[in-house]
Amino acid sequence: MHDITEYLAKNKERFINELIQLLKIPSVSADPAYSQDVINASEAVKASLLEAGCDTVEICETNGYPIVYGEKIINPELPTILVYGHYDVQPADPIDLWNSPPFEPVIKSTDVHPEGAIFARGACDDKGQMYMHVKALEFMVKTYQLPCNVKFMIEGEEEVGSENLGTFVAENKEKLTNDIILISDTGMIANNVPSITTGLRGLSYVEVEVTGPNRDLHSGLYGGAVANPINVLTKMIAALHDENNHITIPGFYDKVEELSKEERAEMAKAPFSLENYKKALDINAVYGEKGYTTNERNSIRPTLDVNGIWGGYIGAGAKTVIASKAYAKISMRLVPHQDWKEITELFKTHFESLAPDGVTVKVTPHHGGQGYVTPIDNNGYKAASKAYETTFGKTPIPQRSGGSIPIVSLFEKELKSKTILMGFGLDSDAIHSPNEHFGVWNYLKGIETIPYFYYYFTELSK
Amino acid sequence: MHDITEYLAKNKERFINELIQLLKIPSVSADPAYSQDVINASEAVKASLLEAGCDTVEICETNGYPIVYGEKIINPELPTILVYGHYDVQPADPIDLWNSPPFEPVIKSTDVHPEGAIFARGACDDKGQMYMHVKALEFMVKTYQLPCNVKFMIEGEEEVGSENLGTFVAENKEKLTNDIILISDTGMIANNVPSITTGLRGLSYVEVEVTGPNRDLHSGLYGGAVANPINVLTKMIAALHDENNHITIPGFYDKVEELSKEERAEMAKAPFSLENYKKALDINAVYGEKGYTTNERNSIRPTLDVNGIWGGYIGAGAKTVIASKAYAKISMRLVPHQDWKEITELFKTHFESLAPDGVTVKVTPHHGGQGYVTPIDNNGYKAASKAYETTFGKTPIPQRSGGSIPIVSLFEKELKSKTILMGFGLDSDAIHSPNEHFGVWNYLKGIETIPYFYYYFTELSK
Repeated sequence: MHDITEYLAKNKERFINELIQLLKIPSVSADPAYSQDVINASEAVKASLLEAGCDTVEICETNGYPIVYGEKIINPELPTILVYGHYDVQPADPIDLWNSPPFEPVIKSTDVHPEGAIFARGACDDKGQMYMHVKALEFMVKTYQLPCNVKFMIEGEEEVGSENLGTFVAENKEKLTNDIILISDTGMIANNVPSITTGLRGLSYVEVEVTGPNRDLHSGLYGGAVANPINVLTKMIAALHDENNHITIPGFYDKVEELSKEERAEMAKAPFSLENYKKALDINAVYGEKGYTTNERNSIRPTLDVNGIWGGYIGAGAKTVIASKAYAKISMRLVPHQDWKEITELFKTHFESLAPDGVTVKVTPHHGGQGYVTPIDNNGYKAASKAYETTFGKTPIPQRSGGSIPIVSLFEKELKSKTILMGFGLDSDAIHSPNEHFGVWNYLKGIETIPYFYYYFTELSK
Repeated sequence: MHDITEYLAKNKERFINELIQLLKIPSVSADPAYSQDVINASEAVKASLLEAGCDTVEICETNGYPIVYGEKIINPELPTILVYGHYDVQPADPIDLWNSPPFEPVIKSTDVHPEGAIFARGACDDKGQMYMHVKALEFMVKTYQLPCNVKFMIEGEEEVGSENLGTFVAENKEKLTNDIILISDTGMIANNVPSITTGLRGLSYVEVEVTGPNRDLHSGLYGGAVANPINVLTKMIAALHDENNHITIPGFYDKVEELSKEERAEMAKAPFSLENYKKALDINAVYGEKGYTTNERNSIRPTLDVNGIWGGYIGAGAKTVIASKAYAKISMRLVPHQDWKEITELFKTHFESLAPDGVTVKVTPHHGGQGYVTPIDNNGYKAASKAYETTFGKTPIPQRSGGSIPIVSLFEKELKSKTILMGFGLDSDAIHSPNEHFGVWNYLKGIETIPYFYYYFTELSK
């Protein structure tokens, strides 16, 4: 394969500028106020795929936001790679913690990105990582080196649970036929420690509502005499973990796979500094399930976190009120074998059982997905590993991630193919947080590495 | 004393319309956005006091909102009544639960107010009740019947803790000299069960902030491995009550006065229907400290309620985030002998001790005040009781209230005089809640009763 270095050097500025244009579109799928922007982002992705060399690109309507499907078929006899990514982004809140506006990308140097990083919502998750694939295709097509067929499926609802993707995949199995699925929506350990994600956690996301009296009450006249929905909600949430930070939902751990001592010892070899971890987050101690290390807690163990809570008076100053209602958004990260629908039901039953007389409780499931483990003995993993070796000069480490891409297990079920997770982001890139960014070096490294995956996967498939 | 009935019948419409004009001013002291409106309300009060017959009225500047001071001195030898009230109001949130805009008063009938009630923020608390005194003075002056001196001190910061009133009172003891203080900022049992409030609870209002990691984090990558400030906050709040709903703060109950069996038996005689109480609030059970009745829980017992809680993502849809910070506003209602400053310190020490490693906690006291018990054997109480007997045809019941008017104990300390709480509102008037209202009958009954207080108090003081 002809080296990409020269092409990259020549087109680097353009690649960065094109991504910046895409990042300027505030395609926040969770907030209806941005719906036109989400549509605009899909159009921009379509145009970029055509520009990069796809033969055909369609905007496929769904009951929600559209899926952009593109393909470059050079020979049906050759292997086919299906690239999945998403053009929607997380909400930017809390907006006042951003150092620059989330949809006005700027490039700044950081300690871990001395060559600069692009700061914008979606820079890493997932516009930047998705766009690496567009530019990798461009390189292969423009230099007449594409060795296989490539398909793109870029959706606009990943950050809100990919609700319509399942239907689309089920209804378009023929069109989506592939030999391997390639996704860049995860991270790696460090720029000098490349890694490939081999496990993902599942997810169950619910919203709970506790209702007490039928109206807000004066806390002097009613305080102490009626159930205060906020006090009750805090008690109910607190009861979801025991003193060892085990989750108390009956049956929750029944299907959790316990890793062997050997597997845990293998995991523990990954480079990790607890001191640096705490320093980076400015915390004096880590916190979590007793009996597990930090890296185990956020990868092979299921968790339950409140993602948002609200109720009563939250404005400036003081209001002596007992709220009628209190709310929380709660998500559980699940490990392979835990079924997210079953866990959602277990949560619902248990949470409702925690409600004392005097309040009513409503649990509304938001969305969810199954966990996934990628095997490392297939051609897809091997090709990815060789691609990293070529461009990083090091064999990547297989690593379980704590994040969730719920549709990965769906792909396996519907399309019968494995997924390879080639992520180039870093944990410190602040995805889902204020000041999300993506290293320029990482972006270009991704564009450099992906073509080798095409090449090695085709070679290994012969 | 010449009967007020004729004067009332003639001026009723005007009295209602004047109050409506005052209610149109959104004098929300907690929210700086309304600061000009709060000032405007003070000017309106000044004008109405001059109009009613005060000789002089001043707008007294403070470090916050001004205090309106007015007086009608007919003879320094005669008794002097000091009327206290407030022209500021609670915030109107949650605004979408109002059936009509909070600052566009409308009169509608309700089950307990068949003759109509004025719906507006501040209708009962306290503009309506304060304005009864203005109109009572008007009647006495215009009909040449005023038997004593009257002073008015109407402040604009009661809903935010009366921060500057203490200084004002301390610096103006001479000007404020009086024989009795009269306040209408409480309620009565029912329109056919008049009562006079003889006890008030104290208050300690604090805001707490729990900080975990230095930025919002992705719940997949960090979930389970770092302390989630919202989960931690719920655990800390939950730990503030034990399984019997006793408050767990060490020393919290040390100075709480335990009422005797006889006193509790006396209290239990007040008419009360638990079924109606639950029905009015649409709850299937009451909730509170074990060993006490509903009426005891909200009057003679101290309480701890969360008035607001917030943290993380609270917009539409889902965001898988671990927030950097979580907050709550918490207030404690205190009973006589509990010192609010001491309790605030006990809370702070205990709450901070509940924080696990991995988070930091900040407790910020908002404001507070001491509880108060009014004696029923003095001329003030006797005069009030006779006034009610005259206009209601029934002896009023002395009743402890769960609410707080922190400045009452301050008045006693600085001005050495007792306070009589002649409240004409009802518990169902939804003060501090959406759809606050004040019965037209109650408003007029107040205007009718207050002059008799002037009369009997002067008589008894001879």
